[in-house]
Amino acid sequence: MRGAVLYGPGDVRFEDRAEPTIVNQTDAIISMAATCVCGSDLWPYRGLQAIAGPTPMGHEYCGIVDEVGSAVRLIKKGQFVIGSFFASDNTCPHCHHGYQTSCRHKEFVGGAQAPLLRVPLADGTLVASPDVPPDDLIPSILACSDVLGTGWFAADAANVMPGATVVVVGDGAVGLLGILAAKQMGAGRIIAMSGHATRQKLAREFGAAEVVTERGDEGVTRIKQLTNGIGADSVLECVGTEQSMRQAIHCTRPGGSVGYVGVPHGVEFDGQELFYAHVRLHGGPAPVRRYLPNLIELVWERKINPGRVFDLTLPLAEVVEGYRAMDERRAIKTLLRP
Amino acid sequence: MRGAVLYGPGDVRFEDRAEPTIVNQTDAIISMAATCVCGSDLWPYRGLQAIAGPTPMGHEYCGIVDEVGSAVRLIKKGQFVIGSFFASDNTCPHCHHGYQTSCRHKEFVGGAQAPLLRVPLADGTLVASPDVPPDDLIPSILACSDVLGTGWFAADAANVMPGATVVVVGDGAVGLLGILAAKQMGAGRIIAMSGHATRQKLAREFGAAEVVTERGDEGVTRIKQLTNGIGADSVLECVGTEQSMRQAIHCTRPGGSVGYVGVPHGVEFDGQELFYAHVRLHGGPAPVRRYLPNLIELVWERKINPGRVFDLTLPLAEVVEGYRAMDERRAIKTLLRP
Repeated sequence: MRGAVLYGPGDVRFEDRAEPTIVNQTDAIISMAATCVCGSDLWPYRGLQAIAGPTPMGHEYCGIVDEVGSAVRLIKKGQFVIGSFFASDNTCPHCHHGYQTSCRHKEFVGGAQAPLLRVPLADGTLVASPDVPPDDLIPSILACSDVLGTGWFAADAANVMPGATVVVVGDGAVGLLGILAAKQMGAGRIIAMSGHATRQKLAREFGAAEVVTERGDEGVTRIKQLTNGIGADSVLECVGTEQSMRQAIHCTRPGGSVGYVGVPHGVEFDGQELFYAHVRLHGGPAPVRRYLPNLIELVWERKINPGRVFDLTLPLAEVVEGYRAMDERRAIKTLLRP
Repeated sequence: MRGAVLYGPGDVRFEDRAEPTIVNQTDAIISMAATCVCGSDLWPYRGLQAIAGPTPMGHEYCGIVDEVGSAVRLIKKGQFVIGSFFASDNTCPHCHHGYQTSCRHKEFVGGAQAPLLRVPLADGTLVASPDVPPDDLIPSILACSDVLGTGWFAADAANVMPGATVVVVGDGAVGLLGILAAKQMGAGRIIAMSGHATRQKLAREFGAAEVVTERGDEGVTRIKQLTNGIGADSVLECVGTEQSMRQAIHCTRPGGSVGYVGVPHGVEFDGQELFYAHVRLHGGPAPVRRYLPNLIELVWERKINPGRVFDLTLPLAEVVEGYRAMDERRAIKTLLRP
């Protein structure tokens, strides 16, 4: 089969790879219906995160189960399934608390930008949809695998409550779906921070009533003006840089919450700054598995349309252009069909 | 009158100071029944925090109202009152959310180690007890002013729930009263981290079932052993050093909470470390005012005895020895009677 492999900064190749096989009897092999390029794939693509060697890329996936190991009990061949970027047993104490991305047996699921994928711990990791989805639902179903679940966790970690004033820092696909999540959770007022026209439009479509284009300290000042000097109840940080994190913290009112899901790159928090900001801080790798059943149901019943973040669809064979379009911010998110 | 003034590291003096007067018509003057030395007074006393010049010390207080400004409506001359280290109007949006230490009109109340004290924003800051307390209740009433309220906030910020496993880092008066608070909130199991026999005894008296004497990474390992490798649901950080903060974060299970109230000194959080620890973090200057009515009631009904943390009582005139005893860890906390 042919799949995407990253060799170094800017050097992603579509090339021959060995087909995956059952390694442990708890594995499943799925035949990809759709996969995509993640904002986090751009960190190593841009040379901002080292790779050990040629790395099969992609960790968002949905498709039909092709084969299961002999120890798989719940997932069946022929089912349409969605899973998250960390395989989890869904039975350990951390999973029990809803933190499957800290599962004791967690294993990163890599190499999804390919026609076939091995998913470890299939029973814990995969969730079957009610049926094979109609084609027009595929983008929204695929979005559940990571980007929607991550935006959802950002809103959840930021304690979004009915009626709350919510600020979203970051207008990538995760930030945009953080807006959708906050809206679903009953936020009273959502302010998107975005300087990009296409993304602002989608932000409004997902539920943002206002858009702030300023960034950094100016952005904070603007948010304070819009909230009578108080700050927001809940702020979603969906970037992962020092600037975005400081922006998020200082947009939050004392006692308010920051939910952060952008993998921090070069971020340091000053203890006293955080202490006197008086905010709540929670984040980490989103435990998407916790939300999957609910998210799949919302998509299946067509109550939400997260697939709207895919503004570029390409055949898998054109994955290289998929990375380039996102890197150059010509596309918000690229969907790939094998 | 004579009160405590800090001149520099190790140099606290009991000397003549001007008697306070009404400056703003929202002020009250109180006649001190008891005051004390705070762990945070030791930071500048030890030269670990700069002072601008000679500084009147003390911010914990209770006593009888001597005089009120013409704009004071609720607090009356002759009442016995308790207040917190930050004056607050108790009406602004931050106060409304329970974050009185971030009040828009907050003002630090300093110079309480003296017979008389000016308290700004008297109506918002002070809470009257049902009557003048009997003498044996004075230590516990005084504890409400800061140290109990701060321990209480640590437990609240750490989301202590009924049945929870709770770890307390720090065996100073705040940490010890964090144990008392966690117990009151229904914690199922409280583990105190302390290497000091007198403090361990009080920790157990307040509700700790177990004591861990190891610190740093060894302390974390011990907590993991005691919790089947899971970590604690809630961890109270009551010190404020880099080591204690790391210890707190790594004792917490993914999805668990750290409540931190030790003013951070030289603490930096690494973004990725915090991200992958997956913990909730909340802290800051404790909004003691929020808790005061409830805490005073618990003391008044003799349901709690936080005054037990005062293991040294001195006349105010011996305040210098009060600092020395705490600095040398001969005393947990020094109560001073004018």
